Amino acid sequence: MFRTIWLDPDDESVVLIIDQRELPHRRRTQALRDYADGVVAIRDMLVRGAPLIGATAAWSLYLAALGARGRDNPAAFLRRAAAELCASRPTAVNLRWAIERVLAAIDASPAGVDLVALTRGEAEAICAEDAAICDGIGRHGLALVEDIAAQKDGPVNILTHCNAGALATTGIGTATAPVYLAREAGIDVHVWVDETRPRNQGSLTAWELAQRNVPHTVVVDNAGGHLMQRGLVDLCLTGTDRTTATGDVANKIGTYLKALAARDNGVPFYVALPSTTIDWTIDDGMAAIPIEQRDATEVASVRGLENDRWHEVAVVGCGTPVRNDAFDVTPGRLVTGLITDRGICEASREGLQELFPEHARP
Amino acid sequence: MFRTIWLDPDDESVVLIIDQRELPHRRRTQALRDYADGVVAIRDMLVRGAPLIGATAAWSLYLAALGARGRDNPAAFLRRAAAELCASRPTAVNLRWAIERVLAAIDASPAGVDLVALTRGEAEAICAEDAAICDGIGRHGLALVEDIAAQKDGPVNILTHCNAGALATTGIGTATAPVYLAREAGIDVHVWVDETRPRNQGSLTAWELAQRNVPHTVVVDNAGGHLMQRGLVDLCLTGTDRTTATGDVANKIGTYLKALAARDNGVPFYVALPSTTIDWTIDDGMAAIPIEQRDATEVASVRGLENDRWHEVAVVGCGTPVRNDAFDVTPGRLVTGLITDRGICEASREGLQELFPEHARP
Repeated sequence: MFRTIWLDPDDESVVLIIDQRELPHRRRTQALRDYADGVVAIRDMLVRGAPLIGATAAWSLYLAALGARGRDNPAAFLRRAAAELCASRPTAVNLRWAIERVLAAIDASPAGVDLVALTRGEAEAICAEDAAICDGIGRHGLALVEDIAAQKDGPVNILTHCNAGALATTGIGTATAPVYLAREAGIDVHVWVDETRPRNQGSLTAWELAQRNVPHTVVVDNAGGHLMQRGLVDLCLTGTDRTTATGDVANKIGTYLKALAARDNGVPFYVALPSTTIDWTIDDGMAAIPIEQRDATEVASVRGLENDRWHEVAVVGCGTPVRNDAFDVTPGRLVTGLITDRGICEASREGLQELFPEHARP
Repeated sequence: MFRTIWLDPDDESVVLIIDQRELPHRRRTQALRDYADGVVAIRDMLVRGAPLIGATAAWSLYLAALGARGRDNPAAFLRRAAAELCASRPTAVNLRWAIERVLAAIDASPAGVDLVALTRGEAEAICAEDAAICDGIGRHGLALVEDIAAQKDGPVNILTHCNAGALATTGIGTATAPVYLAREAGIDVHVWVDETRPRNQGSLTAWELAQRNVPHTVVVDNAGGHLMQRGLVDLCLTGTDRTTATGDVANKIGTYLKALAARDNGVPFYVALPSTTIDWTIDDGMAAIPIEQRDATEVASVRGLENDRWHEVAVVGCGTPVRNDAFDVTPGRLVTGLITDRGICEASREGLQELFPEHARP
């Protein structure tokens, strides 16, 4: 078992994280001793995954509050720290959200408040709430896995793409949550883990499944359709970065291809998400969700370990043109259902409005 | 420009090949001086691609005929060479076919025939016939590209998977043939090249497109569906290892996913093939085509160049379970048409029988 971010029990002025750049090959704990360490951890991707990035920012503000002690203007110091943290990864929505939440708590507090205690409380609350969301998703998704298990002999084979796992959150993950709860409930599960080029987050998923003794097999991204054709997949389960009001989901590039294969083979395709990531302002995911274009080097080279040393090797010829879209949009019509912390619903406007009537539009 | 296999013009006892293991990073010519060099070239994959493997085997028998000169029993020497060549890659159909063709020619020749001249003639004929097949596919496929070009402004965007290119043949390739002829005809074409994990044959396709100045862009295998959703693909064009009598095609793993995306987005999906690779004995590709399971290390590690040195780096954790299916089967219903050296037909029993009436079953 592991945690992704926690206070050092021997020294409460230190926040500990797993340096995820070293995974899956090495498990290294990294100490964050001041907020600048937090900026580096987020910027250099020692931590990744939207919820964990938010949690790291919140804990970094706690470190900033510690560092502000005894300064002339602690609040100004904290605001500078917040600005630096906010700029560490500009596109991460959770990063800004977590920082603004902590700052709002400071603004709402009386003068002379203990900023260390306040920021620590906020960071702990953000982590606990994230873990609770994961648990909620897990409980609802578990029912799906139980249903499948009741209808077949042998393991329930679940295919997942990217890492929407415990490593991306401060809990049991989103797409992985039903898997972990099923395993705890004694259900025979096996996970097909998509490699997820270009950044190979599948190796993170495989690593965390191994930590929790969940049987799994890594396959290249090309394999999922073939596995479904052969009846080797009972359920597809992915995360999402953003869900529209009509049930379209933006997720790691390649998700759409698996959804197509699932439909062609009658395999249920579910997407797990915290209900906070639903963007109620967007109807058409294809038209309205901007797709991040990332650096060509992610495609042109691969980082890995040889003889206990890291290398980054070129896999295309020098100067070869490359395009690197980070996400794609899977239309709601291809999604069997959305698994949220509040329950499961159809991936459609009607389905979402039934589960979230407060967002229903007249 | 390049050739994949040719007789050394300065020394006709030497056959030259490109060592494709060094591509796309280095272009190295390798000399085959006796048939044992040919065995190594096939076994260690200095050459790959069914037609080129067959051609290499034929040229290796020419080298064996040279080596047999002056021996007591040249025919026995040649038969030993043939047996060794045949075992160099057991699953390659073209390998056995080419060897049997040369042996049959020897059997059919009068006693005392010049075995060197005979084997050389057979090897040259095999290469010339393969090149003619590629040209035929190219001519028929060119018409498709011309049609698309006439209907749009800007480049015709063609997506391809794996390498069914000149590097796999002794001509202009199969899936690449229409592309090269379109380029020669002055049509503005651009090729999306699937990386094609786990063996990254896309880097070979990119290399050969660059040699012929065809604009291209490498993408990860996850990207094709997204590109089609965005209207960035006008035509999918792949090769195939085996086509059934009903138009199902076995090809590199991941082809099926692209065919699904093409159907979902109304993009034509064509498969190019020498008509000799149609297996008229098989009706149901899913049921009857065995899928090769390859070594896990192909998925677990990636080979590439760093600072001009080759490294093979691990990309999943040590001991992680991996599965590596080499091919998948795309049902004929997802294939818009088959481009053969004889013409284009529907990927169905009726379509194939119309183009190949000699194979029609009553």
